[in-house]
Amino acid sequence: MRDDLLIRIDAAVCAAAPRAESCFEALRAATQDGPGVTRPSYQAGEQRAHDQMAAWACRLGLQVTADAAGNLSMRWPGSAPSLPAWVTGSHLDSVHQGGNFDGAAGVVAGLLACEALREAGFSPRRDLVVMGFRAEECSTWFVGRHGGHLGSRAALGLLDPAELDTATHIATGKTLAQMIDAAGFDSARLRQPEPLLPASTLAGYVELHIEQGPVLEGAGIPVGVVSSIRGCYRARNASAVGEYSHSGGVPHEFRRDAVMAVADLLMQMDDEWTRRRGIGEDMVLTFGKLYTEQALHSIVKVPGRVDFAVDIRSQDNETLMQVEALLRRLADEIGARRRVRIDLGAIDRVTPARMAAVLQTRLDAHARALGVPTMRIASGGGHDAADFHDVGVPTAMLFVRNANGSHNPDEAMAMADFIQGVRVLACFLAEQAG
Amino acid sequence: MRDDLLIRIDAAVCAAAPRAESCFEALRAATQDGPGVTRPSYQAGEQRAHDQMAAWACRLGLQVTADAAGNLSMRWPGSAPSLPAWVTGSHLDSVHQGGNFDGAAGVVAGLLACEALREAGFSPRRDLVVMGFRAEECSTWFVGRHGGHLGSRAALGLLDPAELDTATHIATGKTLAQMIDAAGFDSARLRQPEPLLPASTLAGYVELHIEQGPVLEGAGIPVGVVSSIRGCYRARNASAVGEYSHSGGVPHEFRRDAVMAVADLLMQMDDEWTRRRGIGEDMVLTFGKLYTEQALHSIVKVPGRVDFAVDIRSQDNETLMQVEALLRRLADEIGARRRVRIDLGAIDRVTPARMAAVLQTRLDAHARALGVPTMRIASGGGHDAADFHDVGVPTAMLFVRNANGSHNPDEAMAMADFIQGVRVLACFLAEQAG
Repeated sequence: MRDDLLIRIDAAVCAAAPRAESCFEALRAATQDGPGVTRPSYQAGEQRAHDQMAAWACRLGLQVTADAAGNLSMRWPGSAPSLPAWVTGSHLDSVHQGGNFDGAAGVVAGLLACEALREAGFSPRRDLVVMGFRAEECSTWFVGRHGGHLGSRAALGLLDPAELDTATHIATGKTLAQMIDAAGFDSARLRQPEPLLPASTLAGYVELHIEQGPVLEGAGIPVGVVSSIRGCYRARNASAVGEYSHSGGVPHEFRRDAVMAVADLLMQMDDEWTRRRGIGEDMVLTFGKLYTEQALHSIVKVPGRVDFAVDIRSQDNETLMQVEALLRRLADEIGARRRVRIDLGAIDRVTPARMAAVLQTRLDAHARALGVPTMRIASGGGHDAADFHDVGVPTAMLFVRNANGSHNPDEAMAMADFIQGVRVLACFLAEQAG
Repeated sequence: MRDDLLIRIDAAVCAAAPRAESCFEALRAATQDGPGVTRPSYQAGEQRAHDQMAAWACRLGLQVTADAAGNLSMRWPGSAPSLPAWVTGSHLDSVHQGGNFDGAAGVVAGLLACEALREAGFSPRRDLVVMGFRAEECSTWFVGRHGGHLGSRAALGLLDPAELDTATHIATGKTLAQMIDAAGFDSARLRQPEPLLPASTLAGYVELHIEQGPVLEGAGIPVGVVSSIRGCYRARNASAVGEYSHSGGVPHEFRRDAVMAVADLLMQMDDEWTRRRGIGEDMVLTFGKLYTEQALHSIVKVPGRVDFAVDIRSQDNETLMQVEALLRRLADEIGARRRVRIDLGAIDRVTPARMAAVLQTRLDAHARALGVPTMRIASGGGHDAADFHDVGVPTAMLFVRNANGSHNPDEAMAMADFIQGVRVLACFLAEQAG
């Protein structure tokens, strides 16, 4: 690729920074809710974000369509339309009173890159598609059995049609199928086996997203090149059942104390995490929910039941399997020793998604050429990108530094960092689609 | 005392067993609530129990009065009324859907003993008083600041008048003073310094109560002679505050995980308990309430806050003080290491109440003479007896074996075991009041 094109592209991205900022402000204004923004899947907040992005894409001359699941497709046709297309994008929904950037930053980045490429006089050979996916935050909005990332999984043919009927929206009580149809899309199409966006038509997928942890902030680096998206092991409804008894009158050896059993399990798992960190293994471990029974617990009762949730993640599937096996063994051992039945309940497993090595190398090369500091980083959160990986599409991700984590109103991405990320993204897309 | 009197008394107790059973059945029928009984302090259920006991006492010819706090006094005047009186009894309220025997057994036992003494031709030299106390289960029924055992503490002059205004009934929202007045008693009298039942007028107090733990059941012994009532240290509103963050994206060293900090604290305290048991110290330790925040916790968040309650009990005040000091030190150490602020909140402390050694010896002697197997046992739960101890009245307690703990509908006291306890009680009272 000619260096002067890249220089023109980069200048156009930098010139577009004020437009990015006003675009984010318009998104925030349209979906403000208390201290944060709320864009519930298949409801008005999400739709307003789709409308704003669609309007911008129309101004850019892209082909704007919505698929049967309501995903927004904004396509810049290439000169060789028979070649597999390059895709970028992210999701446009948010959690309840979440931050303005989680998801939306990736769609804004894609459109900003297209705008800069066009201003630089670039024309793609392959189709270049910016996607705005539905319902990536469906863990927040849908209860009942579903596999997550409803929009991107529906597009790529990964959605089990049963999920259309088992996932239920928390605000309306409607099934996913009913929500899709009520929003004006076509759930019946999603029961057919052919994907809306077949993997065979895709050359690659790249997603820009804010980092959801403190690693870039801690390292003082604005942009991360994601090495892989951690897989996870989740026990959403684990419990420990012992026996309620009198806190003053029951000696140690007679107790069946559910809280002590779970604390024992946590500490041994925490020790295992420390051990694996010590030998350089990638892993995180969280017991995010843990509670005695509100109707029955008391300061004067030995607690008879604890409900809890376990979330274990790693880039390495072998680690996940070993840690799951240890968790099961400890649950049995501690349960037997403390006479408490520890039941991990139903388990969700997501395998790690390794980003394409060749694409990581190209992102590095562009960042180096542009003078943008980067580092390799694992993604702890799941992303639509994982679904592209899962159907065999070469996939890459860029993280942008973000001070206060995601899924909260305090997320803080500096516009200068965002533009650093878009500079890398635009040059990368020009190379891949050019 | 003449042996033939004791033989007649014992025969009369044994003959009275069917009356005890029908009395308990009438109490249950009057206060049945689902699977258990509910006798809320200063409300209808408690009052029905008072009415039944008062009616029985009237039939026995006792002087029946209620004091300004609503405690039921059933007095058998002695031939030497200037001598300090002997008192027995317990409380007549229960927890929500509790068992039929917790509290009521001690009042029924007192009346049954009086009935047997009378049938045996006994006349007391000292006044013999059976008390039915109010609001011993006030931890269940009253929120706000109060020191527990509201009825017996009011009778003995231990109630701080401020408690009349700070304790609030959970069902009505009324203050203790308003509840007392609404039930027809006289809260204004309780603001005066003179006790309703001055310690100087009392020779001793003995209370029969079901055991609230499994010790007698485990040992196969029907009756326990209580050595002391454990003191306790209670942190009702302890909390650990860290920081919510993304469960997938935040590495170990960046976390401020409130659940892990509390689990660490629990395990170290559990180890201390095991150590002290090993060297023969008396202690129990319970974290009966422990919960992440329902509105904010999530399987995909590092938990930012845990609320919990701590209850530590021992017969030995030195042990309580040492264990409290350790708890504070560990809370600080673990909090600093895990960057979580562990705040134990306000602390309630009750010192242990040692039962009078000479009375324990006499209870033992009567049991031996009657062939009733007994053992020494610590009381884990608090009892009205502790308040008599605290004002310097020689105090004793008898425990009756109870299979399934107290404060639940499954408490199971065999009537035969109850009668064994009353046999000892009646002979003891004949000796002490005779």
